[in-house]
Amino acid sequence: MDNTSYTPEEPIAAIATALAPSALGIIRMSGKKSIELLSKLFSRPKALLEAAGNTIVYGWIKDGDKKIDEVLVSVFRAPKSFTGEDMAEISCHGGTAVITTIFNLLLKNGFRQAERGEYTFRAYINGKADLTKAEAIREIIESRTDSGRGRAAGRLAGSLFEEISSIKKLVVDTLAAIEVEIEYPEDEETIADAFDRAGIVEAIERLKNLRDSWKSEKLFQDGARLVLCGKTNAGKSSLFNSMLKEDRAIVSDIEGTTRDWIESWISIDGIPARLFDTAGLRATDDYVEAVGVERTHDLSEDADVILYLQDATQKVNKDDLLFLKDFSKPVLFVWNKIDKLEDSLNDADNSKIAVNVCDVSSVSKKIFLTDEEKKLIPSLKKEIYLSAKKSDGIESLVNSIKDILTFGVDTNREQAGLGSARQKTAVEEALKCVEHALVAADDNYTLDAVVQDLEDSLDYLGEITGEVTPDDVLGSIFANFCVGK
Amino acid sequence: MDNTSYTPEEPIAAIATALAPSALGIIRMSGKKSIELLSKLFSRPKALLEAAGNTIVYGWIKDGDKKIDEVLVSVFRAPKSFTGEDMAEISCHGGTAVITTIFNLLLKNGFRQAERGEYTFRAYINGKADLTKAEAIREIIESRTDSGRGRAAGRLAGSLFEEISSIKKLVVDTLAAIEVEIEYPEDEETIADAFDRAGIVEAIERLKNLRDSWKSEKLFQDGARLVLCGKTNAGKSSLFNSMLKEDRAIVSDIEGTTRDWIESWISIDGIPARLFDTAGLRATDDYVEAVGVERTHDLSEDADVILYLQDATQKVNKDDLLFLKDFSKPVLFVWNKIDKLEDSLNDADNSKIAVNVCDVSSVSKKIFLTDEEKKLIPSLKKEIYLSAKKSDGIESLVNSIKDILTFGVDTNREQAGLGSARQKTAVEEALKCVEHALVAADDNYTLDAVVQDLEDSLDYLGEITGEVTPDDVLGSIFANFCVGK
Repeated sequence: MDNTSYTPEEPIAAIATALAPSALGIIRMSGKKSIELLSKLFSRPKALLEAAGNTIVYGWIKDGDKKIDEVLVSVFRAPKSFTGEDMAEISCHGGTAVITTIFNLLLKNGFRQAERGEYTFRAYINGKADLTKAEAIREIIESRTDSGRGRAAGRLAGSLFEEISSIKKLVVDTLAAIEVEIEYPEDEETIADAFDRAGIVEAIERLKNLRDSWKSEKLFQDGARLVLCGKTNAGKSSLFNSMLKEDRAIVSDIEGTTRDWIESWISIDGIPARLFDTAGLRATDDYVEAVGVERTHDLSEDADVILYLQDATQKVNKDDLLFLKDFSKPVLFVWNKIDKLEDSLNDADNSKIAVNVCDVSSVSKKIFLTDEEKKLIPSLKKEIYLSAKKSDGIESLVNSIKDILTFGVDTNREQAGLGSARQKTAVEEALKCVEHALVAADDNYTLDAVVQDLEDSLDYLGEITGEVTPDDVLGSIFANFCVGK
Repeated sequence: MDNTSYTPEEPIAAIATALAPSALGIIRMSGKKSIELLSKLFSRPKALLEAAGNTIVYGWIKDGDKKIDEVLVSVFRAPKSFTGEDMAEISCHGGTAVITTIFNLLLKNGFRQAERGEYTFRAYINGKADLTKAEAIREIIESRTDSGRGRAAGRLAGSLFEEISSIKKLVVDTLAAIEVEIEYPEDEETIADAFDRAGIVEAIERLKNLRDSWKSEKLFQDGARLVLCGKTNAGKSSLFNSMLKEDRAIVSDIEGTTRDWIESWISIDGIPARLFDTAGLRATDDYVEAVGVERTHDLSEDADVILYLQDATQKVNKDDLLFLKDFSKPVLFVWNKIDKLEDSLNDADNSKIAVNVCDVSSVSKKIFLTDEEKKLIPSLKKEIYLSAKKSDGIESLVNSIKDILTFGVDTNREQAGLGSARQKTAVEEALKCVEHALVAADDNYTLDAVVQDLEDSLDYLGEITGEVTPDDVLGSIFANFCVGK
């Protein structure tokens, strides 16, 4: 939101729940006259006007004499509310038509539609939440797995705020000692005596830890993109469905944004991943004309991992290799339908393979990419063997995906971590300043130079929590929120 | 829900809002120990346990020491709640992960997942709502347009309940008079004196009105299916998008359930309609192999109106006619791209046609289906001329669709209407009984026969409101609800 246009306490309204048929829908209002304005659309205006904070009033939303819906209104009185202002929340029936009708009625009767994040922005302005908590709210809403939710909840509970405050204290204590030295220079011999080296070294250590946490936090926040591709009939849809099963699908709905692919979010051991099932590459000699191949290519270029599916009963041909030759993104080459191979393998060398359970290790001895072929897939990471239809071998695929995604990332963090790229930039800048201060102190620069560095680092740390934050930064933070929060 | 398994006051929980990232999510609990059970997962158990009804308590949901989310809990005390039992509603952040985590935590700690409609069923059992109101709740949730919402809100406010009660009173008054006649036969000469003919005639009239209301109510509830088909490049996607524009789209999301079609709900002047954009029929001689044609055929067979799109700059060919020849469903033959025709028409006969605005009447003089072709489209209703790309002529298409959908249906009802097929069946049965009673009275049957008919009609009317309703009927009513309501 553009906070320069912010008018304090102007009454705003927003639909706070998703617009899909469900039991309940919530419409949220905040601002000085919000309860008065709402009372004019309410069957029991007096009850609403007289309601104490944190109480619930039953009645009907009315448009003149027309009854719109039977609702409950939660009343919050300033400053004891999320925004710190007077607030009301209408809990109506969760139909798309009823929610939008009530919302439009509010807009016609004195409420302005809230900007993205405007409720949280008001909470921040009114001192109800610092910026790390504000950002954690957006994170919690957007978390797709419980691991992601837990990391954000820690920040909402104040873990990051406390870590930043604690680092600031180390810097402030040093600054205070230096100030004493500047005021009473006769008491100390050298800068070294005034400079709490151990405290600054600890600050640097902890800032580095925070900076490094972002890689893992980002992975759990943004998730990864997995693209399933391969020729028509390689079994992509079966694998897509198998990967959605076993509680791995995050929501049951499958979105299809175009006819060229369908997608769904799944959990790779807590890491949210967007799985794309693309249109099949056609097994045709005319590679250029293959239906959908262009789009599949585009999707694959944005992928974090490409799952290339190959029917194990079919030979790898030049279409497969042509498709894979250009990618820089990691490729898992997935041999599918290995259950169908069993008989033929049995016939071939009389080795004993269980009939109902496909024995991946036996199979993998028989089929693989030749060295020649491997050379043509520069970003090949591994070959995987599975039967999508029998949901056999999926776990090993999931583990291989996880290994690629978490390579070089410490995912088992217990300490406070960063919640946004903005925070990471500020931590990096603060770190630079503190490191520079240390060098300056060690090299016996003037005290003033050290003071300047340390004060700069405090400004950067203050940006993270919102004590010192330019307007444009605020605007971009809240623009990422959903409406109603 | 299977109400035979209903255990009164057993603690239940359900997610009451749609599972999509949004500002808030609501999880609803009901049952005797619901507040106590929840307090064990709450950071301020004492505050929750001591909270009065209709108040809101702030705190954290906790799993042991692990903080899950910062929430508000609305507390309702029996009997002043929706279900008539003790209830609590958790208002948490609206992320899918956080909502499901809290919900699963409740299920692990003494709550059972609520059946569909179980909250409303409990409200009914506890005398908080009759069945017409219970069904109106489901209707409001499912309403896709404000017209549909308004009709249901009337029933929720009691319009249908009052109309049924009023009709029952007419019958009951007549029955009372007859009972007097049976008790004291000497006071009256004939059955005619005891039988309030005018009252019964009025009851019949009003029952007929109710019965006839269902056609229109059903249209606004269930909506209609519109299927867009035609050859590839006829401009189907442009028309689909044009029809979604101008506030006509009910939700902005477009669903694609398969790669064969995409769909969206739109409003045809208040009538909700599901618009399907199908895969294009390929302009190929090999009709049978045309991609997607099979599915498009299936969709079209379930349609209420088929919109067959034809590029006006192209000739109608045998594929078009072959596709359309089998349908019994109304077909609107839509000539698209008429803006492109202008120049060629101008060239042909030098008639003046505005360049930027396509003049539909001029165009329609130049292109039309021949009588020969019309004969091959047995269910053709009308030819329409438009430019999907310029969104020109859409209104006339929408009006034609509405004319087909509302043919023979009175959509401008002011009186109480029926809200479900179940209610309609009961009204029809009640009507039969009352009509039979009238015939019996007019033909001077015994008083007992008339009494039996009238009493039967009261039973059927009692079924509508739920005073006299068999268990299996109850089960099927609530099975249609969404979870959490």
